[in-house]
Amino acid sequence: MADRIRVTVWNEGRHEKTNEHIAKIYPKGMHSVIAEYLANQGMEVRTATLDDPEHGLTDDVLANTDVLIWWGHMAHHEVQDAIVDKVYNKVLDGMGLICLHSAHFSKIFRKLMGTTCNLKWREIGEKERIWVVEPGHPIAEGLDEYIEIEHEEMYGERFDIPEPDTLVFISWFQGGEVFRSGCCYYRNKGKVFYFRPGHESYPTYYNENVMKIIANAVKWAKPNNGPQINFGNRQPLEKVAGA
Amino acid sequence: MADRIRVTVWNEGRHEKTNEHIAKIYPKGMHSVIAEYLANQGMEVRTATLDDPEHGLTDDVLANTDVLIWWGHMAHHEVQDAIVDKVYNKVLDGMGLICLHSAHFSKIFRKLMGTTCNLKWREIGEKERIWVVEPGHPIAEGLDEYIEIEHEEMYGERFDIPEPDTLVFISWFQGGEVFRSGCCYYRNKGKVFYFRPGHESYPTYYNENVMKIIANAVKWAKPNNGPQINFGNRQPLEKVAGA
Amino acid sequence: MADRIRVTVWNEGRHEKTNEHIAKIYPKGMHSVIAEYLANQGMEVRTATLDDPEHGLTDDVLANTDVLIWWGHMAHHEVQDAIVDKVYNKVLDGMGLICLHSAHFSKIFRKLMGTTCNLKWREIGEKERIWVVEPGHPIAEGLDEYIEIEHEEMYGERFDIPEPDTLVFISWFQGGEVFRSGCCYYRNKGKVFYFRPGHESYPTYYNENVMKIIANAVKWAKPNNGPQINFGNRQPLEKVAGA
Amino acid sequence: MADRIRVTVWNEGRHEKTNEHIAKIYPKGMHSVIAEYLANQGMEVRTATLDDPEHGLTDDVLANTDVLIWWGHMAHHEVQDAIVDKVYNKVLDGMGLICLHSAHFSKIFRKLMGTTCNLKWREIGEKERIWVVEPGHPIAEGLDEYIEIEHEEMYGERFDIPEPDTLVFISWFQGGEVFRSGCCYYRNKGKVFYFRPGHESYPTYYNENVMKIIANAVKWAKPNNGPQINFGNRQPLEKVAGA
Repeated sequence: MADRIRVTVWNEGRHEKTNEHIAKIYPKGMHSVIAEYLANQGMEVRTATLDDPEHGLTDDVLANTDVLIWWGHMAHHEVQDAIVDKVYNKVLDGMGLICLHSAHFSKIFRKLMGTTCNLKWREIGEKERIWVVEPGHPIAEGLDEYIEIEHEEMYGERFDIPEPDTLVFISWFQGGEVFRSGCCYYRNKGKVFYFRPGHESYPTYYNENVMKIIANAVKWAKPNNGPQINFGNRQPLEKVAGA
Repeated sequence: MADRIRVTVWNEGRHEKTNEHIAKIYPKGMHSVIAEYLANQGMEVRTATLDDPEHGLTDDVLANTDVLIWWGHMAHHEVQDAIVDKVYNKVLDGMGLICLHSAHFSKIFRKLMGTTCNLKWREIGEKERIWVVEPGHPIAEGLDEYIEIEHEEMYGERFDIPEPDTLVFISWFQGGEVFRSGCCYYRNKGKVFYFRPGHESYPTYYNENVMKIIANAVKWAKPNNGPQINFGNRQPLEKVAGA
Repeated sequence: MADRIRVTVWNEGRHEKTNEHIAKIYPKGMHSVIAEYLANQGMEVRTATLDDPEHGLTDDVLANTDVLIWWGHMAHHEVQDAIVDKVYNKVLDGMGLICLHSAHFSKIFRKLMGTTCNLKWREIGEKERIWVVEPGHPIAEGLDEYIEIEHEEMYGERFDIPEPDTLVFISWFQGGEVFRSGCCYYRNKGKVFYFRPGHESYPTYYNENVMKIIANAVKWAKPNNGPQINFGNRQPLEKVAGA
Repeated sequence: MADRIRVTVWNEGRHEKTNEHIAKIYPKGMHSVIAEYLANQGMEVRTATLDDPEHGLTDDVLANTDVLIWWGHMAHHEVQDAIVDKVYNKVLDGMGLICLHSAHFSKIFRKLMGTTCNLKWREIGEKERIWVVEPGHPIAEGLDEYIEIEHEEMYGERFDIPEPDTLVFISWFQGGEVFRSGCCYYRNKGKVFYFRPGHESYPTYYNENVMKIIANAVKWAKPNNGPQINFGNRQPLEKVAGA
């Protein structure tokens, strides 16, 4: 890994082009707002979108990415399987992956989870409170006991994911639901973090606390210099008696 | 669920047909030996194999299966994706799944895990000791502290699986390796158990302790009568102020 | 274990004697209401209270208890340490333990958790919704997606417990908090379930769904016939070369 | 937290004074060897021993410790409860704790685990192989797939601990046992790591890989700047209807 964490922020990038209201909130796309914040934290940041050649995720880009952030919603099905497979292999080989909000339904997240990742939702702009339940976890760095978002889309349980390896946040919604909002997973050498907030029609990625959490997650998910793993046929430690 | 647990034992069934040595150990196939044991425990047992029409997993069979046991090895790629998808949906809907030995590389197990499920192996017929690490778990019912298998294929870590929801057994191998041998997972409403032993060239499924564990796992994995889950757009509890 | 699950319902039993309002809700104590429900499920049920000799937990009672249910609040400090130690040893040896509501602060629960088990609370009789997050777990048997309690005391995160081995329920409270409400733990051969509801001033233990969950938890927590464990100095499998 | 991680290495320090063989291996005590290694990694390191006033763990020392490393064996019972309580409170408040080898039976580890922490053992100087099972975890940084220790005391399962939040290492022993050797736990704001190797009669703490793991564990366990937690009575978000 390079000295500075190398982040690629991937965004579907369609809502911002087709919806005037969303374009006003994120004139250069959600990815630009996220990228700018992380660059200000001293990270080396690239962006990539669905409509770039190879969705912006060329071999060269992936080879130079420590942590990939993913936002998608209306066009999950347009993401090419071959590129999903490349990202998948990179994650298993150590690249961090942060899936935001509606990326719960992205091909890459579902493939890594092994479940449908389905959930409940409601879009009336209600209040969300995100409670820290594992305060010693590095992703809770610098936070208060909860963060509040005035208007967000609701996501509710049952969220069809495998039990998180560590559950860091649980959301409360004004209309009566709860949600496991910050979920950490190990997948071979890679680390995956799912983080709930960020509906395209609200200015959520301008929220300082939301961005603090994303920056913390990048630091947590960055690759370690872990063991080279040898699968397959292996020799015994020494001659095994009777074998 | 019916009064008696309805088990379907699925076996690839090829080794027994093509290898004389294996045919001698399991003249009617591994599935028959497993099925007979479970039937003697009072379960309602069916078998199915790769070469049956629809691999023996018709809609009717799946609709009448509480727990599916899976053994495969040399022909994982011949299992039709459409049938894997049907089994996958059944598991998420509550059917139990027990994957044995080389089924670590089956399409269905990999799809449910989200990882490669790769591992180390060696076939010199060395000794395996399977230690109970969670003695209060129902799958450890009726066992001693460890069970020993005189000759088995070695499987060694790193086993590329998600961290088990509960790890019940760890194997020791004479040649120097360890392995997470009994792994429990929740996948939506379904329960999945991976159990390591059972190489086709050893009489492992005649081992009383191995079979006790498989029977325990069937009882653990059987469907519960859990909540009907409603995904998608939901109404709020009551009118949300300001929304 | 006997054929019928043998349950002992332990209740501090003080609120019911000193508070007229509570005495009206639970004239014979909360333990009697819980005991009656479980007896109707075919369980063999005893009750015991703080003011009984040895708190009702004699060696004989404990020797004949498969699952102990615990409710305490105002007099945790009056429970004798010697009896807490006996219960603790019984749990590690396989007896199930279900801690209800304010038993989060009982000596036995804190000793088994290793943390303070502190939390937030508020008593204004607000609405609680308890969401099932692990629908395949046996404790979720027979439930809908959530259960609702019209008036309850609020308990809120951060709840200072170890991460549950399995988290089955999360509560939503009208006033803005969430809580990990149904928490499963293995402790050596014993199983422990913490279940949140049951403030003394509300008729919570007359709620059919609350009682269904307690009955499910009893079935889950009952001892298995697991391995006899031998700690201490052990012989090697065979002579170890060079040792 | 200060810029450099402040580590206090606590050692019982008795074996080295009373046993000639051990004194030869660790003339200045195991703590000195560990401390020197960590200081060379740029950490700010102190040592403390049982026979120091207040066991060397004064309020001032604890106030200036980010991570405490603990080695004890023959004199666990001589550690004063009042000091154990101070260390316990510091851990819950965020101080990292690394318990080495026979510290599995220390008062502080048992108090934090809630179990007996008992295990099997054998001292014939057999070979240990420590396998990495979670290669993406920061504590596996810079390692190969396994590390090997030529001569060590055996510790074997069943190890009576709560299921680790993350299991990083599993040991293989020549004589037939396995052991969960590297166990991570969150305890409120603090992080606890148990690491198996380090019997006093072998030069284990001169092993480069063992020390790499301890240094990695210090970095993992260091406090984060997490939320200030407010337990107790709380106000609702807003007036709750009907309450």
